[in-house]
Amino acid sequence: MPPSPVPLPALGLIGFGAFGRLVATHLAPLVSLRIHDPFVSDTAFAEAGFAPCGLAEAAACPVVILATPVATLAALVRDIGPHLCPGALVLDVGSVKVEPARIMRAGLPPGVDIVATHPLFGPQSARDGLHGLKIAVCPVRGGRARRVGAFLRRAFGLTVILTTPEAHDREAAAVQGLTHLIAKVLVAMEPLPTRMTTRSFDLVMQAVGMVRHDAPEVYHAIERANPYAAEVRRRFFDLAAQMDGALSEAETACVEG
Amino acid sequence: MPPSPVPLPALGLIGFGAFGRLVATHLAPLVSLRIHDPFVSDTAFAEAGFAPCGLAEAAACPVVILATPVATLAALVRDIGPHLCPGALVLDVGSVKVEPARIMRAGLPPGVDIVATHPLFGPQSARDGLHGLKIAVCPVRGGRARRVGAFLRRAFGLTVILTTPEAHDREAAAVQGLTHLIAKVLVAMEPLPTRMTTRSFDLVMQAVGMVRHDAPEVYHAIERANPYAAEVRRRFFDLAAQMDGALSEAETACVEG
Repeated sequence: MPPSPVPLPALGLIGFGAFGRLVATHLAPLVSLRIHDPFVSDTAFAEAGFAPCGLAEAAACPVVILATPVATLAALVRDIGPHLCPGALVLDVGSVKVEPARIMRAGLPPGVDIVATHPLFGPQSARDGLHGLKIAVCPVRGGRARRVGAFLRRAFGLTVILTTPEAHDREAAAVQGLTHLIAKVLVAMEPLPTRMTTRSFDLVMQAVGMVRHDAPEVYHAIERANPYAAEVRRRFFDLAAQMDGALSEAETACVEG
Repeated sequence: MPPSPVPLPALGLIGFGAFGRLVATHLAPLVSLRIHDPFVSDTAFAEAGFAPCGLAEAAACPVVILATPVATLAALVRDIGPHLCPGALVLDVGSVKVEPARIMRAGLPPGVDIVATHPLFGPQSARDGLHGLKIAVCPVRGGRARRVGAFLRRAFGLTVILTTPEAHDREAAAVQGLTHLIAKVLVAMEPLPTRMTTRSFDLVMQAVGMVRHDAPEVYHAIERANPYAAEVRRRFFDLAAQMDGALSEAETACVEG
């Protein structure tokens, strides 16, 4: 391949877990990646076809993506602060948005723009490509959220949902909170039937298959770091208990063959 | 269309609800139907393109399909007894099999063969045709279950699972019990998000959509008439409570940002 006539813009990616790798794979043709993850070995980097760099080098890029667990974001924001360039754009990709937006707004230097994102997909659902998948994009500081959205639409065919951290977390509490909760319970009930199944059960189990290998950090972010998740769980359990009560009562009342 | 050279064999269908109509639509080209349902008006029959007949006429056919709610099966078996021909074959299509098999074995005259079936689909999943859909077939009396299975495979492309009422109900308690329980709770939680959704949530809601309009009798048969359903619900609720407990504990323990 002939060398690119214009040098590719540098992009820092901090975090090379399952989602970081997905980001790297899709951005590699478009930018010159500087990837940092102290928890991933050089061998694992090499196997994935990438090379690691230091934190300072990744953080000094004009655009920096933070792809680490939500629980470690505050410490990371503290660590990268001194290395960020004025006018840089920092994005995160966590499953919740209220808490990360607050952490980044409070912790990142004033001259840095911030866009909080949540790609509503994981490595499983992105297996057949990114086209048509959804991503939530929240402006946090500076006016670059719309341009980020336009880029994601154009470059990857993503469906971009421009929203606020609060609106995002409210919807995600139901969407992801319920899916992960149901999946967790069904996985714990295994082995479940695979032969005598209905189409609707197959769909539920397909959904379970898509989230069952998610990192524990994802489950914890969804169920704990989302301020609305506990309320959604409460409603789910209350309604389930009502159904159960109604069925038990009916069992006692109805002795018909 | 020229008249059929050989007269079609007569088949009695008792019960013209949602599933009875599906049976009628698919069998109409192959047999001469005698349909009875005292709860469906002549107008509704006409609108569906069929004509009703009396119970005796339907029950006197060489093959009789019972497509009524499980809760009314004992009374129906009593009523059709005097009209059945010796050597007739009686089939049911209920969502559970232990109780219907017992009722039919105990109540139908000795000279009548019995096959209990459970089509693992409803009008929703059969919208695009029957090919590849599953049906459980249980021999109850006489040796005609395999021939029934062969016919269903050949005529409709159904995947036939030859099994026993007990094995069926054990698997169905998980498959249908869990799907309907989850669907019932999620429907009660509506409105749920439709915009900011993940692929896995979309699959779960697609499953909900397939069972949400099922007749209440179907839900009751699945959750109450299945002897193993209560035990499956118990496990689901116990595990869900454990998850909830673990998350609440963790919430108290983890104050990390």
